[in-house]
Amino acid sequence: MKIALGQINTTVGALEKNARKMLDYVAQAKGKADVILFPELAIPGYPPKDLLELSGFVEANVRTLNQFAEQIEGIDVIVGFAEPNREPSGKPCFNSAAIIRDRKIISVHRKSLLPTYDVFDEGRYFEPSQTQELVQITGRPVGVTVCEDVWNDKDSFPRPLYKIDPLQVQVNMGAEYIMNISASPYHLEKWEERHKLLQNEARKYHKFVIYSNLVGGNDELIFDGRSVIISPQGEVMARAKDFEEDLLIFDLDSKEPIIRSSSVSRIENAKKALVLGIRDYVSKCGFSKVHMGLSGGVDSAVTCALAVEALGPENVLGVLMPSQYSSDHSVIDAVALAKNLGIRHEIIPIKHVFDSYREDLRPIFKNAAEDVTEENLQARVRGNLLMALSNKYNLLLLSTGNKSELAVGYTTLYGDSCGGLAVISDVPKTMVYELAKFINRDREIIPQNTIIKPPSAELRPGQKDSDSLPAYEILDPILEAYIEDNLDVDQIVQHTKADRELVRKILLMVDRAEYKRKQLPIGLKITSKAFGFGRRMPIAQRYNHH
Amino acid sequence: MKIALGQINTTVGALEKNARKMLDYVAQAKGKADVILFPELAIPGYPPKDLLELSGFVEANVRTLNQFAEQIEGIDVIVGFAEPNREPSGKPCFNSAAIIRDRKIISVHRKSLLPTYDVFDEGRYFEPSQTQELVQITGRPVGVTVCEDVWNDKDSFPRPLYKIDPLQVQVNMGAEYIMNISASPYHLEKWEERHKLLQNEARKYHKFVIYSNLVGGNDELIFDGRSVIISPQGEVMARAKDFEEDLLIFDLDSKEPIIRSSSVSRIENAKKALVLGIRDYVSKCGFSKVHMGLSGGVDSAVTCALAVEALGPENVLGVLMPSQYSSDHSVIDAVALAKNLGIRHEIIPIKHVFDSYREDLRPIFKNAAEDVTEENLQARVRGNLLMALSNKYNLLLLSTGNKSELAVGYTTLYGDSCGGLAVISDVPKTMVYELAKFINRDREIIPQNTIIKPPSAELRPGQKDSDSLPAYEILDPILEAYIEDNLDVDQIVQHTKADRELVRKILLMVDRAEYKRKQLPIGLKITSKAFGFGRRMPIAQRYNHH
Repeated sequence: MKIALGQINTTVGALEKNARKMLDYVAQAKGKADVILFPELAIPGYPPKDLLELSGFVEANVRTLNQFAEQIEGIDVIVGFAEPNREPSGKPCFNSAAIIRDRKIISVHRKSLLPTYDVFDEGRYFEPSQTQELVQITGRPVGVTVCEDVWNDKDSFPRPLYKIDPLQVQVNMGAEYIMNISASPYHLEKWEERHKLLQNEARKYHKFVIYSNLVGGNDELIFDGRSVIISPQGEVMARAKDFEEDLLIFDLDSKEPIIRSSSVSRIENAKKALVLGIRDYVSKCGFSKVHMGLSGGVDSAVTCALAVEALGPENVLGVLMPSQYSSDHSVIDAVALAKNLGIRHEIIPIKHVFDSYREDLRPIFKNAAEDVTEENLQARVRGNLLMALSNKYNLLLLSTGNKSELAVGYTTLYGDSCGGLAVISDVPKTMVYELAKFINRDREIIPQNTIIKPPSAELRPGQKDSDSLPAYEILDPILEAYIEDNLDVDQIVQHTKADRELVRKILLMVDRAEYKRKQLPIGLKITSKAFGFGRRMPIAQRYNHH
Repeated sequence: MKIALGQINTTVGALEKNARKMLDYVAQAKGKADVILFPELAIPGYPPKDLLELSGFVEANVRTLNQFAEQIEGIDVIVGFAEPNREPSGKPCFNSAAIIRDRKIISVHRKSLLPTYDVFDEGRYFEPSQTQELVQITGRPVGVTVCEDVWNDKDSFPRPLYKIDPLQVQVNMGAEYIMNISASPYHLEKWEERHKLLQNEARKYHKFVIYSNLVGGNDELIFDGRSVIISPQGEVMARAKDFEEDLLIFDLDSKEPIIRSSSVSRIENAKKALVLGIRDYVSKCGFSKVHMGLSGGVDSAVTCALAVEALGPENVLGVLMPSQYSSDHSVIDAVALAKNLGIRHEIIPIKHVFDSYREDLRPIFKNAAEDVTEENLQARVRGNLLMALSNKYNLLLLSTGNKSELAVGYTTLYGDSCGGLAVISDVPKTMVYELAKFINRDREIIPQNTIIKPPSAELRPGQKDSDSLPAYEILDPILEAYIEDNLDVDQIVQHTKADRELVRKILLMVDRAEYKRKQLPIGLKITSKAFGFGRRMPIAQRYNHH
């Protein structure tokens, strides 16, 4: 059997555009493959979220599917769509795979396992399938499943989430090939976990596993592609590109593997993910140009370098907004960065505006001591200046806060948090430095001084992050244990060897900053648990972390 | 049988505090009632959201339940808690009701139907019960269910969401009394729908329905209480207070109804809901004082009047920030409002700061024409001034945008959207006027001129909302049809008789403003569909609304 993996980048809601893209892939694969697989929900785009609840949306996706199907001949096509549920009870849709042959939908296979955790809300929209079926492709019985349906293997998960294993049922029914269409988002190390699971399943059942994944950024989610074909011996025989569209055609009789994806290190993966996430968010929102504040610090430098890689230097503007508390180096380092990246920059000192605020507030504040008010005010003057440029020149503002500072609330709401996309909001500070070094691997792009100087918000004379926070090498493991692993105080103390009172204090800082994170822009997810859609914490809550 | 309804206001995460409150209610009911019912998930508070995923949280809630149970004697207690799922597969918890008698938990009944739509995410956390049981109370068989379990009656819903009806099963098993513990949030007309459903079920099965509901604000959700006892003839025999805690004791043999809740009109209900929502959000976040910008317009006037009712005039500060485009009346009207409400006010003109921004941006903007940039800048100067006051005096800033303007993006991000709580973000503009008139029912609190003048953002000379938007009497029905009823263009045209191109344009405006709404503060929900947690729209999407 000759397989084509149509690893495409869909746009949510752009039904016709998604279908046109697939017709183009079908044309390229025809004559070379017996069947082409597209990703989960490729017609409506993934994740369609509450668009599924709009009258007419699901019907429009069915119309688009039917028009698409009418143009298919000479190759079988497997494609994901939202199928209306015509039964008298239950959720309004199924998350289904259509199998198309000779201008007709010959079979529809519904997803059985509906992920409803982290960023996934499928139980909100879809009714699970209660049955499994096979379909004949090139005369052989094939089990077609959708994404999560292959993620309940009892040998891989000590505590399965679901009571049934659709894959096992299909193999028991006589499936000779396992095909799966997915929209499985990237996070660090996720692809290795994903491929290991599929390899275990191929070996366990001694079947080919043919797996087609989505690629591209959709709001906070980044899909890494890496569609794969695994032999019954568990060997990866074909692997599509990472973080790029790809059409991969592979003859299952071939002994010669085709391995296209290249990123190996965790950091290279993270960098590619963030670059794709920026490019797709900006373009799918209808923008082409971005800007950001450049403080001379490592967060804005990394954000800027990623944006330049995503969009080109001609589409990125750096804005320097020094205050009376800024070190000389903050301007020198930011200008050097702009020069190294070949981007335009502007300098707008904030003292004048800042002083005008202070003057106008004096009748009310009288002789009140300076405090966090004046620190935040400076950050907010910068936010306003950046938003003025955004409005005047139709630039999408990138915000530059890292995960560590957003976690503990070490950020100014309506100040440095302003923007349309929070590029590194899921990158802990220690990993920001790793990214900086990776970006500099061939030549100095981010000035060395930006990397080696102690982190500071520079909002009062001589301020350092370490005045009010533990060193990031101590903070980040505590935050990871709490946010990604949901550990409690005792477990975190045991795991990190940190001081118990410090741990408890940090957990309460994270909880108390929830109101700030509620108001952040979309942030690109690269860890197993990002702030945002996948982490749903109450704000007005009083859990005590004993 | 003598019933006590313990209609309490829980705090999410405050396990011991919630238990202490219930012990106090138990002490009051002992000797007067055979059984007291508390709300759903009363131990952890509702909704606990992802706190349920933290290691130790569910165990701590079980510990609290056990300590609570040890103190119970002389009365049966029914109380909601999160029960760990000890089975080898499935979600980690059940949403359960514990029945406590003589210091012991004698029975645990698990929720079968898990709402996973709108603001509800229960499929994310809980495993559904597969079985139904009865418990003996005063020697009679009682069916105890949790909230949604009574919401799948096939005679009330044309298309049931779930395949089973736990209530019917329990009645078939011989339940003589129907008891339900709930956390059913308020929205306009919801309580009538809720009571009608329960009345239908009481009549259909010819049983007493005993229904205990939560009261209080928890982030965006407002629970209205109105716990109720309904006779087998469908008559409301007892109804607890609305929007207040209550302990209602009722003998089922009594013929004399006890009806405590008083609000009748839709607007009085909405006003009480918003007042409770403000009071609880502010206090459960640990604040006591609030402030807001007063523009002289109706949105800020209504917000301010609600805040004064919630917190008292001594805890509310009004801030007037006129610009060169403000009409004289904007200051006069705002001062009159402050005087009528008895609150302190401050005046900070924004021209000086605004001019300093313009001056500093001139080298970049050069001779670019004034546009929305300068309008937004004024709103953002106000946002910064308000946040400076918030930081200096520990005031929680209330934002004052209404639902209509947030829908179409007629709001300045980081400007008038700044704040910790968006009080009227779910109140359409036409209803803001209704609230204003209701607030003025006895005497003029909101100046008449605020109510009668044409709405304007006053961000450029002579600006009126009607320059760029249709009249709110036309806009609001279109928005309601789209946002609350999910209708498509054709359906909205048919429903509202509005122009087709106008409808399509408005729907696209709503979609394109999603990025702004992503960054709003928590907003109090009073309609069937509010922006925020219950409406999950993708941002980078391109659905075309044919």
